[in-house]
Formats: sequence, structure tokens, C-alpha cells
Amino acid sequence: MRRLKAIVQYDGTHFNGYQIQDEGRTVQQQIDRALRKIHKDDSIISVASGRTDTGVHALGQVIHFDTPLTIPDERWCIAMNTLLPNDVRIISVEEVASDFHARYDATGKTYLYKWERTPIQSPFHRNYAVHIGYHYPDVDKMRQAAKHFVGTHDFTSFCSTKTATTNRVRTIRKLSIEEFGDELHMTIEGDGFLYNMVRTIAGMLLAVGRGQYDPDSIIEILAAKNRKKAAETAPSQGLYLVEVHYDE
Amino acid sequence: MRRLKAIVQYDGTHFNGYQIQDEGRTVQQQIDRALRKIHKDDSIISVASGRTDTGVHALGQVIHFDTPLTIPDERWCIAMNTLLPNDVRIISVEEVASDFHARYDATGKTYLYKWERTPIQSPFHRNYAVHIGYHYPDVDKMRQAAKHFVGTHDFTSFCSTKTATTNRVRTIRKLSIEEFGDELHMTIEGDGFLYNMVRTIAGMLLAVGRGQYDPDSIIEILAAKNRKKAAETAPSQGLYLVEVHYDE
Repeated sequence: MRRLKAIVQYDGTHFNGYQIQDEGRTVQQQIDRALRKIHKDDSIISVASGRTDTGVHALGQVIHFDTPLTIPDERWCIAMNTLLPNDVRIISVEEVASDFHARYDATGKTYLYKWERTPIQSPFHRNYAVHIGYHYPDVDKMRQAAKHFVGTHDFTSFCSTKTATTNRVRTIRKLSIEEFGDELHMTIEGDGFLYNMVRTIAGMLLAVGRGQYDPDSIIEILAAKNRKKAAETAPSQGLYLVEVHYDE
Repeated sequence: MRRLKAIVQYDGTHFNGYQIQDEGRTVQQQIDRALRKIHKDDSIISVASGRTDTGVHALGQVIHFDTPLTIPDERWCIAMNTLLPNDVRIISVEEVASDFHARYDATGKTYLYKWERTPIQSPFHRNYAVHIGYHYPDVDKMRQAAKHFVGTHDFTSFCSTKTATTNRVRTIRKLSIEEFGDELHMTIEGDGFLYNMVRTIAGMLLAVGRGQYDPDSIIEILAAKNRKKAAETAPSQGLYLVEVHYDE
């Protein structure tokens, strides 16, 4: 058996999230179906770095799976992409050590959140960015607030109340707000993220930019460890899993 | 009654084309439904510059309609966009002369055709550009061939055999092929286009770029007035109606 690591891109619009569920079309379902066809009906279960929600996109999701086949690495992309629907693409496949684990070995992740600042949202962006409309936020204030998230904090105030994990301490390594023409991007890198954590931070930063909260209020809201103190969770269609980090 | 002219953008992916049909979701159906709501169930029928096929997009479709309402022009966009699904957007509305006609007054149209030249197509572009894949075409040859289309010709070889119009003489004013990073764009402006004409020209230029036809073969194919002499029609998802031209 060989263990393969693959980088996966997907448009999350028409998926009920990443992970296989009882009902609905999921990314993992499509990938495992393609793997099963390649393995002539032997069931191969892929393992991802983590799940993503309905509507969330990926530019660099990472999975691993084991295979007895001796297909050369460069043929794997073509074989899988031929069998996958075109809203999921395998970008690269490489053999890794037999103990590599897409989830447990991840040392961090980078996410991108996209807003569109135009009077009327382009119909071509509706599933790929969140429209801010006429009320452009104050980007300087968003950047001031962003600084308070960087570092190691308990993120109870910035994750879903449905979060099962009890240890909510995470480290944000980088958090930047950048303008690209009509788009406003939040890029966040951390050692790990709780359920809805990136979207809650995005929602909070936008609320600060719109003057609903003071940039320095982040300090108190983190300390409160109470989800109700923070702003609304931002919608899923603006969120992209950009990269999963591993030690070399 | 006032006559209003509106510019409309739409993502054609989930529409069965522009024009109202017995079955299927169409752009006109959505627009006329929004107009009916604004007019408290009075039926208002909009008239477009022309129809577009299933999957074809618009950046600047033009429509006109008559209204007894005295809503200011700038409120019309908001009123209509509030009622429209987010894959159709009204970009602007202005009052025009009562004899303005979106279709009959059009003096020309500009279309864009987009190809993506990447080893693996981005899942985010699958509905918005046609993937060329590993076989990159020779852009210089495409440009040589493009020159032969410019001017006034009988386009019988470059329209659907289902074309009802008997006068197939049209004038192409401009035809350019440009590279933008991984994208290859064909922009074409003419006084009018026959059914499938832009997509057949796009398909022909790509076939020339791939060496399946000589650039100068366009001369003979135009002269043959026979659809079978030309290459395959290019797929609909690469096509955008960019602008409808009117005399000032």
C-alpha cells in the first residue's frame, strides 16, 4: 500500500459541505466515489484536513488515502479529474510517508474571506464573495481590530455555540485586511480554527468597520468568553480554505 | 406612460436562455415577474435587444418597457434588484424617448468569448470560460484568421443550420484576440449576429489555433456558404453579451 496526499479545489456552492452525510451531495462523497471507481469497486476512504461547511470553498484542501495501485503520481490527477464533477478538481497528488495524516499532521491553516464593495453586486460573484453594498466599512478600523486577534487566545466568543471542543485556545499567526479594487479580503492563518471561528471573526471585523463596535472592544469580547458579545457570523459563500500547513 | 431603458447583467448558468418559453426558468420571465410585482399585478412586458441561449451570460443586455409609474430613475434599480434573483441584476435605468426600441434601434452588439488555458480548469471558472487544457492554441494564427472575418460577408457558413433569417449578410466591425494571464479572450463587434454566429466563429478560430485549419481557409469557408465547411460551434458558457450599441 502507498499513501498519497492530494490537494483539492472545490466550488462549495452546490455541496452540502465537505464531509459525507446521510443526505445531500458532499465533496468527500464525490472524491470517495471517484476513488472507488479507480479501484474497481474496492472502497477507499479519503481523510481530509478538516470539514468545510455548505457553501464554503477550497483552493487548497488536503486529503490522504491509501492505495494498492501503482499508477504514477502525475497520472492520478488526470484519472481522478476525469471521474469527478467539474466543481471539484484534484490539483496535485504525491506519495507521502505511510504515517502522514492530513488532519493530525496539519500544523495550521490559512483562510481567505472575500467581500465585494460595489453599489450592485455582480451576478457572477454572488456565490463567491459577500456583497457589502453602499455602506463601505472603514478599513483602518478593521485593521486596528484585527491586531487584537493575533496571538494565543481563548476563542469561545468567536465560535459557534454548537462547538463540541472544550479547549478553545487557538493561536492566530497572521490576520490581514487588504483591498483589491472592488474586493476586500481578510486573510487569516492560525494553528487551528474552531467551528465557525473564521466566519465569526470576519463578521466581527465588518461590524467594527461599520462602526457598530470599537476596534478595541475585541479585547473585552475575547475576555468575556461569550459568543453573544461578538457580532453575527459572516455568510459562508465568502469563505475559502486556502492552504493547510504541514511541517516539511 | 414613460418608456424606460435598462441595462441588465446575468449569469446565464441557471437560465434556459433569455426569452420566455413554455417551460424552464428564463431571464425575461424573472424580469417581467419583478415588473408585474412593482406594477401591482399589471402585466408589463419587457423587450430585449435580442435573446441569448442557455448558459450564455450578459454584462450589458438592454431592455425597454413602458410604465405609468413615476418612480425616479435611480430608484428603479433598487426596486427591481430587490425583487429579482441574484443571478440577474439591473445595472442602470433611464427614461428614453417613447419610440426607443431595444431591438430595432440597436445598431450593433459586442460579444466576448472566454477560454481558460490552464492544465486543470479552476472549479470556479467552469461555468464562465471554456477550458482549453494542455493544447494551447497558436494565438498568432487565430489573429490571422480573425482578420478575414472583419468586413461585410455572407455568414451562412458561420451560423446554425436552424437560422430562420434568409439575409445572412452581416458586417463585423472589430474582432480581436487577446491574452490576459491564463485567459484568452475573443472580442467581436458587429452590426448584428445570426443564430450561433459568435460561437461558430469562436469555434473556428480555436480550430485554426490548434492547426486543424489554415488561417486563410476562412476566405473559402465564407465563400462556400455551407455550415459544414466550418468548425464546431464553441460551448455556450464562454459567451458574454457585453454591449448593445445605439446611435446617440
